[in-house]
Amino acid sequence: MSLLNETHDPALRSWVDGANRPGHDFPIQNLPFASFRRRDRGESWRGGVAIGDAIVDLAALHRAHPFEGLAAEALAAAAQPQLNALMALGPPHWSALRLALSRALREGSPQRTVIEPCLVPQAEAEYGLPARIGDYTDFYTSVHHATNIGRQFRPDNPLLPNYKWVPIGYHGRSSSIGVSPQAFYRPRGQVKAPDADAPTLAPSRRLDIELELGVFVGPGNALGDAIPVAEAEAHVFGIVLLNDWSARDIQAWEYQPLGPFLAKNFATTISPWVLTLEALAPYRVPFERPVTDPQPLPYLDDPANRAQGAFDIRLSIGWQTPRMREQGMADHVVAQTSYRHAYWTVAQMVAHHTVNGCNLQPGDLLGTGTLSGPTLEQAAAFIELTLGGKQPLSLPGGEQRTFLEDGDTVVLRGWCEAPGAARIGFGECRGTVLPARG
Amino acid sequence: MSLLNETHDPALRSWVDGANRPGHDFPIQNLPFASFRRRDRGESWRGGVAIGDAIVDLAALHRAHPFEGLAAEALAAAAQPQLNALMALGPPHWSALRLALSRALREGSPQRTVIEPCLVPQAEAEYGLPARIGDYTDFYTSVHHATNIGRQFRPDNPLLPNYKWVPIGYHGRSSSIGVSPQAFYRPRGQVKAPDADAPTLAPSRRLDIELELGVFVGPGNALGDAIPVAEAEAHVFGIVLLNDWSARDIQAWEYQPLGPFLAKNFATTISPWVLTLEALAPYRVPFERPVTDPQPLPYLDDPANRAQGAFDIRLSIGWQTPRMREQGMADHVVAQTSYRHAYWTVAQMVAHHTVNGCNLQPGDLLGTGTLSGPTLEQAAAFIELTLGGKQPLSLPGGEQRTFLEDGDTVVLRGWCEAPGAARIGFGECRGTVLPARG
Repeated sequence: MSLLNETHDPALRSWVDGANRPGHDFPIQNLPFASFRRRDRGESWRGGVAIGDAIVDLAALHRAHPFEGLAAEALAAAAQPQLNALMALGPPHWSALRLALSRALREGSPQRTVIEPCLVPQAEAEYGLPARIGDYTDFYTSVHHATNIGRQFRPDNPLLPNYKWVPIGYHGRSSSIGVSPQAFYRPRGQVKAPDADAPTLAPSRRLDIELELGVFVGPGNALGDAIPVAEAEAHVFGIVLLNDWSARDIQAWEYQPLGPFLAKNFATTISPWVLTLEALAPYRVPFERPVTDPQPLPYLDDPANRAQGAFDIRLSIGWQTPRMREQGMADHVVAQTSYRHAYWTVAQMVAHHTVNGCNLQPGDLLGTGTLSGPTLEQAAAFIELTLGGKQPLSLPGGEQRTFLEDGDTVVLRGWCEAPGAARIGFGECRGTVLPARG
Repeated sequence: MSLLNETHDPALRSWVDGANRPGHDFPIQNLPFASFRRRDRGESWRGGVAIGDAIVDLAALHRAHPFEGLAAEALAAAAQPQLNALMALGPPHWSALRLALSRALREGSPQRTVIEPCLVPQAEAEYGLPARIGDYTDFYTSVHHATNIGRQFRPDNPLLPNYKWVPIGYHGRSSSIGVSPQAFYRPRGQVKAPDADAPTLAPSRRLDIELELGVFVGPGNALGDAIPVAEAEAHVFGIVLLNDWSARDIQAWEYQPLGPFLAKNFATTISPWVLTLEALAPYRVPFERPVTDPQPLPYLDDPANRAQGAFDIRLSIGWQTPRMREQGMADHVVAQTSYRHAYWTVAQMVAHHTVNGCNLQPGDLLGTGTLSGPTLEQAAAFIELTLGGKQPLSLPGGEQRTFLEDGDTVVLRGWCEAPGAARIGFGECRGTVLPARG
């Protein structure tokens, strides 16, 4: 079975402004979903699909009834304020809607007259969370990150014995997940210097990022029903960028024995546009595990996962200080990596999460964990890039940084390119640190 | 300010059957809330208040418009399928509704004719989750449990250096929280014997319980707004029993470095009836911290918390095997303790959770953690009661148990009594282990 179909044809062109511009994140081969509304008009949230510089307003399109069958059913679900109902439908519905939109948005489509009145300029839009996120789980799928950060928290024991067997994950906070662009207050918390007798309550001074991807769950499973790894991707709707802001000084003091808590749950930022697994099909790559490593237990192993389980999603981290902003400088890219370096795949995360019968629900979010690659330049958190804060990064204009200072903005970006395929992108995941309160 | 008012008067009697029976969990001084419906009638869920052997159907009562002002507003919110809207209102509303119900349910009340048609026998009811639980956080507030279990996971280092400073907590799974009585499948997961080369996937053989209380959040806080400890209890609606089922063999292998995950998220059971903080006021006790221990940091310290921050909620664990059930034997109580032994209070949990700006929402659930008391007989998990599975418990009929076997039922109970106050109870929190699937 080929994962590719006519919607991936790199020769396709759209009649919508901007969609054919080289390097644009949202050509007709992408068609990601978001929840949006126009700013300052008191409008309701509804689903939208990005195309070029515009958004197809799916509530307006639904009222025009342009499609039939599964595509029409999917469109009705996507017209709602959040996409949980669309996510619950499953791949045949998602695929039918994608195909219908692709055909309607192509140059020369007779449906242009129906679609065109439903376009909203992206410049007028603001975005909400794509789904009501019932539960948020964060994994730890980069062995490079696990080793790098493990070395800082446990110098003698960086990679724990379970790492190569267990797709380590833990539950995170749903309520504080926000959509890009997000501004949040620097968290306060208990911190303790190694030589201090007692902790103090103070604003975090080691405020960091974690470049991750977020995986939105599609159809769920009933409590008690494990999802086999071979069926896991049918339970996945799509992928966003995710910044798991982390206060390392709070984390170091609080995390034993039950894991991170206040070091993480003050804010998590995701990008508004969800790229479907179907859109990402041309950029699948083999899941490469060193042959000298233990091979996955049977419930985590599957031929399709080995052959095409990973995604070559290119990722970058941009840093912009207040002074850079004042001087009109864009953010400066301090690291680049790819999701292909992850040690565990999306399918393995889903299979592991449910092997004990835990129920996933449509709209649940699974973070991949920090996606550091094998080299220092590919590290996906500042604690790694700066060697624990010992080696500052140089930014344009002569500034240096180890951890985030007040007013700093971080911009995550993601995109895909492959031979014989279009380039598609995720847009931005942008967040800014406000000074601590209280 | 006295926390007590006319609703706590132990001399009050109700005209409802069973309410005046000595030892009943639901006298007129209690008035706990649940979400319920009658079984097998296709009815909608709605709020209810327990009184004696009956439930006041709050949707039916709302239609009768018996109350005015805040009580009427609270009743309208409580008539909904889940209690999030009631929880969001805050103490003045809760208190007004409690007073109105107390007066209407008293012997001789002229409102009896309005209330009586709204009573449903508890014997006809089934219960739903009291609230849509957005986020579930589990704390670790018993120093005795932390020490006992820490000794088993880390013999040389049972109580970590942060314990007496930080109210340790972590995020749990919302989707798998169920209401008593709950049956769940024994979880499968990766387990590894200490001398094995590799883990295997197997049904847990060290399936345990954790006797906890669950705290339902009332009005939330905006992201970035910390809740001061002195104001924390105004953000708490009430308390339920909670069983945090735990697979110790899965936990031991997976929990480093990010905490428990699949060892816990297959099921969590809560009791249906939420006792309000106002109902629990007569059973407040001082928060006793040894003077030789570090005193709480200022953001966790408050005179009212020291004076009355704790609750003397008596708790018991009952065990019933299939053979006991077949022979008509009730569950056998294997441990008893009290919430008064906790090291951190409800107010401290709320203040700590939000000190970094993390937002709580109405209906969020905070687990207290396993509420083991200072002696072995007061241990609140089987791993403690059986010394890590080495010393079986004896049950009536000659059976012995260390961890749970298929078909076993565990019944948690809670109640309060104090001089000059009525006895009130939580009802039961009951769960049964089904054989592993797959």
